[in-house]
Amino acid sequence: MTPFTTTRRVEFGDTDMAGIMHFSNFFRFMESAETEFLRTRGLSVSWYTAEGVKLGFPRVSAACDFQKPARFEDLLTIRVTLEKIGEKSVSYRFEFTNQRGEPLAAGRITAVFCRTIPPNQIESLPIPADIRAKLES
Amino acid sequence: MTPFTTTRRVEFGDTDMAGIMHFSNFFRFMESAETEFLRTRGLSVSWYTAEGVKLGFPRVSAACDFQKPARFEDLLTIRVTLEKIGEKSVSYRFEFTNQRGEPLAAGRITAVFCRTIPPNQIESLPIPADIRAKLES
Amino acid sequence: MTPFTTTRRVEFGDTDMAGIMHFSNFFRFMESAETEFLRTRGLSVSWYTAEGVKLGFPRVSAACDFQKPARFEDLLTIRVTLEKIGEKSVSYRFEFTNQRGEPLAAGRITAVFCRTIPPNQIESLPIPADIRAKLES
Amino acid sequence: MTPFTTTRRVEFGDTDMAGIMHFSNFFRFMESAETEFLRTRGLSVSWYTAEGVKLGFPRVSAACDFQKPARFEDLLTIRVTLEKIGEKSVSYRFEFTNQRGEPLAAGRITAVFCRTIPPNQIESLPIPADIRAKLES
Repeated sequence: MTPFTTTRRVEFGDTDMAGIMHFSNFFRFMESAETEFLRTRGLSVSWYTAEGVKLGFPRVSAACDFQKPARFEDLLTIRVTLEKIGEKSVSYRFEFTNQRGEPLAAGRITAVFCRTIPPNQIESLPIPADIRAKLES
Repeated sequence: MTPFTTTRRVEFGDTDMAGIMHFSNFFRFMESAETEFLRTRGLSVSWYTAEGVKLGFPRVSAACDFQKPARFEDLLTIRVTLEKIGEKSVSYRFEFTNQRGEPLAAGRITAVFCRTIPPNQIESLPIPADIRAKLES
Repeated sequence: MTPFTTTRRVEFGDTDMAGIMHFSNFFRFMESAETEFLRTRGLSVSWYTAEGVKLGFPRVSAACDFQKPARFEDLLTIRVTLEKIGEKSVSYRFEFTNQRGEPLAAGRITAVFCRTIPPNQIESLPIPADIRAKLES
Repeated sequence: MTPFTTTRRVEFGDTDMAGIMHFSNFFRFMESAETEFLRTRGLSVSWYTAEGVKLGFPRVSAACDFQKPARFEDLLTIRVTLEKIGEKSVSYRFEFTNQRGEPLAAGRITAVFCRTIPPNQIESLPIPADIRAKLES
């Protein structure tokens, strides 16, 4: 599958007193790249069906290795690769580079297809064929 | 009414590259003090009734003046005063001091009593007598 | 002065359990609009001079009124107006609308021109003529 | 070594529209547990020496597996185990349980001992004997 890329700028509020992007924000940047990847395929991380059923892809695992710091106003390119689609889960790999092309970090998120049973029970489900087809498109 | 006080420590991830707590986090600290204030009165900022109706106090206004920086590992004391209860709204004042007793910031949040009509409409309502009594206790 | 506009999308992680953007994130969105406003004028909210002096515009006041909720995947337009430049301070007004043109919120940030005396003292200074000229451009 | 435990409550602003704690906040909770672990040993994640040298433990890797959701107002217990101290790095394991003792998540952070060369270069260093002794205490 062709990798997908998006960009996001490091905001002042993303930095910490070490003068670099706080490590937790790489996970937020991964999420916004994941969401944009899904959006280009007509999907989302959380949505309601026409029948009012809440579906989504909550994450069961997230990891990131940090090689070089991201700094305030850096424009990060995030490359998203769909690594694996299982029966119920999907895994993405994320690679971060800055505006000089330097690799900064690489991470992975695994999400599971779920529906929410009101008010707040969450149940995993096999990924339906239409959603699978969109993911693989 | 007697003011309510709580404490919260400034975490590393709350700071920014200026070496001080990012100003947006004062609003998060106000919220945790507001929530704790409500909790001591048997209330919350968002809950379900026994009948499955979602109620809560979304904010319609928030403001803060910053006098001195809060720094990593500072233990902030947040003093909460219930300033006003209107027909549908409630206003709190928050005063922040650090562990040396220095005033750092003062803010205000106004919240409106609302119910959520699924999936996502929000409607303001008069504050019921029992909730009003708890707020004023 | 001509207002400046920028856009930012509401991410999944910007929402809260009420299903809407958490109110504290309006302040982060204001900051990214402020930063982008400054960037287009060759300025920033924090930078080092050639001599290694750290300058910046820490905020002394922030406020926001929330009229309608912002929701996941909404593309917010943020209109920035420079309201006032004082001797040491600058005030911005921010107006948020969603992709349907509905007004969501309006806020204000006041920032003071400061230098940092290492390791961590902060001193306010009159805004130099060259920076003032860029702000007013 | 004896595990260290601390607690932290899930705030309203830590949740997302799925009604559960946003996954990125587990990393912020890990950090606050790491910092508190270090504090009890007379250490920190970022500090200045008497000579004005900035030292700290920036993270080079972070990962977390999520088993069950954490919800608003849950009081999480975070158990910290120092897994490994290498020449320059230290790895911690974090286990999250809620107030009913249910395991929610388990994660790992690896941090490297570094000094900052002003204004913003970061260099890794062998962990000095006194700091190593405090970590192992």
